[in-house]
Parts: sequence; C-alpha cells; structure tokens
Amino acid sequence: MYVLAINFKTYKTSYGLRALSIVREADAVAKEYSGLVRVVLLPPATEILRVSNAVSYSSVFAQHVDPVEEGAYTGHVTAEMVKEAGATGIMINHSEKRLRLDEISFILSKARKLGLETLVCADTPEVAAAISILNPHMLAIEPPELIGTGIPVSKAKPEVVTVTVSRVREINKDVTILTGAGITTGDDVTAAIKLGTQGVLVASAVMKAQEPGKVIKEMSESIVKAST
Amino acid sequence: MYVLAINFKTYKTSYGLRALSIVREADAVAKEYSGLVRVVLLPPATEILRVSNAVSYSSVFAQHVDPVEEGAYTGHVTAEMVKEAGATGIMINHSEKRLRLDEISFILSKARKLGLETLVCADTPEVAAAISILNPHMLAIEPPELIGTGIPVSKAKPEVVTVTVSRVREINKDVTILTGAGITTGDDVTAAIKLGTQGVLVASAVMKAQEPGKVIKEMSESIVKAST
Amino acid sequence: MYVLAINFKTYKTSYGLRALSIVREADAVAKEYSGLVRVVLLPPATEILRVSNAVSYSSVFAQHVDPVEEGAYTGHVTAEMVKEAGATGIMINHSEKRLRLDEISFILSKARKLGLETLVCADTPEVAAAISILNPHMLAIEPPELIGTGIPVSKAKPEVVTVTVSRVREINKDVTILTGAGITTGDDVTAAIKLGTQGVLVASAVMKAQEPGKVIKEMSESIVKAST
Amino acid sequence: MYVLAINFKTYKTSYGLRALSIVREADAVAKEYSGLVRVVLLPPATEILRVSNAVSYSSVFAQHVDPVEEGAYTGHVTAEMVKEAGATGIMINHSEKRLRLDEISFILSKARKLGLETLVCADTPEVAAAISILNPHMLAIEPPELIGTGIPVSKAKPEVVTVTVSRVREINKDVTILTGAGITTGDDVTAAIKLGTQGVLVASAVMKAQEPGKVIKEMSESIVKAST
Repeated sequence: MYVLAINFKTYKTSYGLRALSIVREADAVAKEYSGLVRVVLLPPATEILRVSNAVSYSSVFAQHVDPVEEGAYTGHVTAEMVKEAGATGIMINHSEKRLRLDEISFILSKARKLGLETLVCADTPEVAAAISILNPHMLAIEPPELIGTGIPVSKAKPEVVTVTVSRVREINKDVTILTGAGITTGDDVTAAIKLGTQGVLVASAVMKAQEPGKVIKEMSESIVKAST
Repeated sequence: MYVLAINFKTYKTSYGLRALSIVREADAVAKEYSGLVRVVLLPPATEILRVSNAVSYSSVFAQHVDPVEEGAYTGHVTAEMVKEAGATGIMINHSEKRLRLDEISFILSKARKLGLETLVCADTPEVAAAISILNPHMLAIEPPELIGTGIPVSKAKPEVVTVTVSRVREINKDVTILTGAGITTGDDVTAAIKLGTQGVLVASAVMKAQEPGKVIKEMSESIVKAST
Repeated sequence: MYVLAINFKTYKTSYGLRALSIVREADAVAKEYSGLVRVVLLPPATEILRVSNAVSYSSVFAQHVDPVEEGAYTGHVTAEMVKEAGATGIMINHSEKRLRLDEISFILSKARKLGLETLVCADTPEVAAAISILNPHMLAIEPPELIGTGIPVSKAKPEVVTVTVSRVREINKDVTILTGAGITTGDDVTAAIKLGTQGVLVASAVMKAQEPGKVIKEMSESIVKAST
Repeated sequence: MYVLAINFKTYKTSYGLRALSIVREADAVAKEYSGLVRVVLLPPATEILRVSNAVSYSSVFAQHVDPVEEGAYTGHVTAEMVKEAGATGIMINHSEKRLRLDEISFILSKARKLGLETLVCADTPEVAAAISILNPHMLAIEPPELIGTGIPVSKAKPEVVTVTVSRVREINKDVTILTGAGITTGDDVTAAIKLGTQGVLVASAVMKAQEPGKVIKEMSESIVKAST
C-alpha cells in the first residue's frame, strides 16, 4: 500500500491542541482512504502517547530514537519508550537528526527485536543503497537542500529519485521507497509515484498549511490516482 | 524548601506502568511531607504527559531539552513541548547528556521566557561556579565517577560539595544547590544537607529499588530531620 | 601588551605555501612592532609544525584541541601534540568548534599543567563571564552572527563589548579580553581598543585579503595608536 | 599486495621523537618487504608532515578528516590539508571517531576528487557491507569490544571476519579488506590472512611495544608466509 508520511517536526503546530486537530483530520482521511493509502503520523516524542490514543486508522511513528539500551542514559529517548507510548514504528537519520552508520545499524536491530517498523532517511542514491543493505521497512530519499523549500525533488531533481530506485532495487526488493523534500501539492505526490516510489514524506506542506486536512486529502487522492 | 529530585533516566522502571507506580508512591510521600520536602520527578520525554496527569503534590521536570527553537528540527525535544506536556521545569547538562556552554545559556534564557524552572548539573566546583553565573534556579553537583556507584559524594568526596557551596555562594546567593551522585540511603541525604546543600538528586537508589516508595519516604524523613 | 590574533580557519590560504607566505609577512610585522603588539597566529593542526619553525617574533596557538588524554583516541588532536609541534597556546570554543562546559574546564586544567596559554571564545557577555570563572589567559567576545560578515561587533553591537568587559572584570581582573567578529579595518581595531578590550581576533580580513601583510600592518598600527 | 596498517592513535609514542623512531623502523621493514607487504602509517594530524618527510617505502594516511570543505571551519582538519602535509590516503570511521553515514559518503567523494586513498572502519559485517557500497579502497572490520584487548578478532570471533568477507564480496570485488581489533602477534596476522582478508590494522601491539620494529617485522613476515 502507498504511504503518506507526515513529519510534525517541532513546528508550533506539532504539539498540544493544534497537533491534535491535525491528527484528527489526518485520521479521518486515513479512514476514508483505508486500504488505499497508509497514513503515517510522526509527532514529537512528548506527543506520541496523546497522538496514539487519538488515532484509529493511522500509524504513529517516532521522529527519532537514540541509539542506547535501557539504563543510565538521562535525557535519551529509547525505542522501548516510544513503543510503550504507542508508536508502532520509528523514523531515523532525518537530515535534521543524522546518525552514525553504526548507530543506524544498532537501532534497526533493536527495532526488529521490539517489533517496530523502521523508516530511514537518505540524502543521496548512494547513501540510500548503503541503507538498503541494512533492511529497513521503508527508506525516504530527501536531498537536504530541498527540504522545506516547496521545490519538490520530483521536479527539481527527478534523477535523484529514479537513480535511488534503481540502485536500491539492485540490492533490496522489499523496502518501501518514499520521496521526500519539497513535496507540497498533489501534483508533486503524483510525480513521486510516477518516478517509481511508493509514497511521500512531507512536513511543512501539512504542518504549516492553513487547512492541513485539505492538503492531506489532496495528497491521498493523488496517491490513489497515480497508483492505479 | 529542601528538594528531593528523582531522575528516572531510561531505566526499565522509567516508563509505562512501572513508572506510574513509582510516581504514585512518590506523590503520596510528597503529600505527606507537603511544606517540608519538595519532590521533583524527572520522567523521560515520552512520559511527561502521563506523569504530569498523575501527580498532585510533586513537580515534574524534563530530564533534558534540546537547544533549539520551534521549527524544522526533526527528532528534537523543545522546552515548549515539555511545558505543553505538563512539565514545570527542566534539568539540563546531566553527565549523561552534557551541553555546550552556549547551549546551556540559550536554554536558560528560553526557560525564563517560558516560565520554566531550571536545574543544571555540574561535575566540579569550578564548573558549578561558572554555571551559577548563568542564574539557574537549582544546580546539582555530581562527580560523574560516582554516579550509579552507590558511593555517595557526601562521603567519598565531601570537599567537592563544600567547595562547591562556597564557590557558588560567592557568586550567587539564590540558587538551590543539590548533591548528586551515589546518594543511596537516608544517611547519605543527611550528610548532603549537613554539608550545606539544599537537597539531593537521586536516580538508581529509587528507580532500581525493591520498594521505591520506602526509599523515597526514608530520604524525605532524613531531609526533614537534617534540616531542622 | 595588546594582541592581534589571526585565525587561519580552514581557508584555502590556511595551509601550504600560501599560509607560509602570510606567516612570514605577519612575523615581519611582529618584529617591527615588537614590544608594542603581540601577534598570535592560529594555523590548522597539520601546519603547526611548519608555522612554528617559520616564526621568530609571533606566537603560535592551535585553533582547537580535543578534550582527551593521551591514549586510544584515534583521529583526535591533543594538547600534548600541539605543544610538541611547537604551539605555545591553544584557542578553544570558537563558534565553529564549540565545546561543552566540562570539556572547556578539562582542557584549561590540562593546558595549565602543560604550560600552554589559553584563549577561550564566548558568544555573549554572560557566557564570557562564566568562562572568566575558569581563568583562561585570554577570552574573545564574538557574536557568531557577525563572524565573517565584515560588520565589526565594535560598530554593530558596541554594547556587547562593553557589557562583556564590565561583567568579566567583576570576576576576573587578569584575563586579556579580545574583540572578534567582523573586524576588518584599522578603524575597527581602534574601536575595539577604545571599548576597553586588549586586542582583536581576526580571520577573513587577513586570510582572504589581496595583501595580507598590509592588513596586518594597518591593524598593528591602529593598536599602537589606540593604546597610547 | 597485502597491507600492514599501523594506527598511531594518540598514544605517548604517537608524536615527536618517539613517533619518528617507530616510523624509521617501520620504513626499514617496508623497504625489506618491498613488493610483498605494503606498510601504511597513520600518525596524528600534527605529525603527518614530519612523518611524510621521513619515509620512503611506507604510505602515510591520516587517522581521520572532518567532513567539511575549505572555508570558515575553525579547528577542523580537511582532506586538502592532510594531502598538503604529505598524506596519500585517509582512514575514517574508526570506532574512536565514528562518522555519520552522509559524512562518510561526503568524505569518500571528496577523497576521490583529491586523489586520496580511503580506508573505512566497520564494526559489524552488516556495516561493512553497507560501506562497501560506497566504494572505499580499503575497509577494516573491527569489533570495538576487542580493540586494545590483545584478544584478536581472528581467534575470538573468526566468523565476524568470514561473514564480513562473504557479505562484502557479494557487493564489491575490489575493496581491500583488513582485519583489526586485538591483533597482537604474527600468529594473529596469519589467522587474519587465512580467514580471507588482505591485511591487518594494528595499533597498541606496535605503539606500546618494547621493540616496535621487531613486532612490525614479525607481522610482515607472517603476512608473507600466510599469503604465499
């Protein structure tokens, strides 16, 4: 199933009642497109519990977890904790929270043991290929220079997406590949699907929208049209 | 008022139902010693909401916040978020999550604007003196080599505590000084108060105890006796 | 004696023959203003040996050292090493290489034992005050937003400099205070001295100059005029 | 040709005259085994110039470079600088100086442009496979828990080496694979070669030896015997 992943980041709308309102609108779209589009919500750590309790049709992933076991790690967020709070998956290595390679490998092993899904971000096709060796469930290709610009990678650098797809598929047939960075409109989503990816990772386009629910619905609609 | 601060770290008991059970016992002690001992609970980020909702007599502080503003900071935990989740204060610069000096200064300014209390950890009297220039509400002196050992700084290195008190008091009359690292028993708490500090910061002594409530009560009792 | 400190950073001119040419011009100025202006050169780690061998009238400081002892620390640069290569001092905590507070304290202790001079950078008057508790030989106040802009802090934010001087002097009478960030011309140097600091920390104004020697001479001349 | 790579780390013997003495002994062995064993020396950044000037038969690699371009990066060591100082290659991602995956990719691209050879360390077979996607010249498999123990990975965990070889060779036929961690004697070197790797990465066994030249010679002899 095609994926619409929404990264809340730490925007003003990412927590509290404003976040909850976006979550409810997203979950309504997830219900409407049930079986066609998988909506994945990525709230900040402090909001995972509240968001998990508020959704019925969407998945909740953490934006990041720290590469540590349980124990004496003051101030860290572990995979066990986000699972306990209700997340069923984790994103790691976003360009705003990159990890070392050994840390990515450590967290992916741990997530497998805990039964958490995994989404790993990559900045180039080569990095995406290296990550696909580590067998995450999903990976997102996001050239960092386009993040937050409103210029979709699918238009500005379509070859980054297509080369990623071909390099990753040489190594890994199963990983779900998402297009990120600059995805703003339904057309951008369509382009991402047409380039061979199985969904999108968005942030500001939803979190800073006047009408987030409308954007989520438009993107879901585009996924359905492009994928059939 | 004298302070008993309990750092949950990322122990197995730091989240979920096990955490909630410790929280309830701590809050019962906070009620009993109301006006005599201030109990400060420091749960992990994902648990702040749940813990805040569960307490009536204790304060809830975050174990750490990241030195960023709201915006495009995937995977970060901001001061605004922990406040929204119910924390009324933040700890920073614990030895397991040290910060740069400019970051400590940034976070303290931000906390002041948001009306959050602040507790900053220091590893030496000299660092404690430098931190006291930045005017946090509380600071904890914790020689890292004693953390988690069960060997209390108040016994192993009492001069670290007394030199900290005298160096800090030259600069800052108001900051509440806590003793941390290795505090395990009521006697350790007594020693910490006798050395001139206004409370203790503990972690494993409570979080790994067979009967956490009993330990919290014993420590509170020692605070009351030593401070009167 | 007033100080003209030149941070080579990692500019194209910071290493090899281009660096050596700047070093020789700087040392000629150091000779000319001997007893009036102290020239401190800060080459990158790989160039300390070559630069130290090439100067007779200037001091050579490292741009940074890592907060580790000798031992198994692959890829680190220790205080012992830069001393061996010929440096007589170290700068730390530049805005492009900030350190944690405990690390600053650790390195300053170590430098004292090794007989190395120390220069610590600060971004705000408050941070400068905190650093002055730790007793470095010199500190530089550099608002990071002005670094490399050509807009001198002494013009854009003179109050940052004067408040730094007054806050630091409450705590520490001995530390040499330098003005950094955006210092480009002899006039900027004059302003820095008039505001109460004992010299300047410059980088691009020299390292990217058509005629670095001329700039160094002009700045030295301004120091002499302003300080008499 | 089989490789004997010697990581100087930041041991007391890693700089100054003590380092130079080891370098000369190593170069004498490199001369003796010329055409049979390739000796690669990895001095600290401050010593690259001196070591490069002292050798005729050995290669000199940096222990690490920072993932930055030339410019305003105070305190960093760039690939351009270590090349200028005489290094013909760089090691990165050692367990004591791990890098983010995007940083490894960035540095490898840059090294290719500058004509520098590359050696990347990996802690597990899976990480080694991911790194081999990025096409370094060499990679070293080093389980961090064995580094510095004197317990060779080739004995303690031979399967880590053999699985690394087989996983890497599925992806990359060209990369030279080295065995690291705990290699102490000629026998350990023999075992590493027999397990299918093309050389060893050693540190304390040479740098802390009473007679470093003798150890280097013994290891070289073992390489020759095991590889013929």
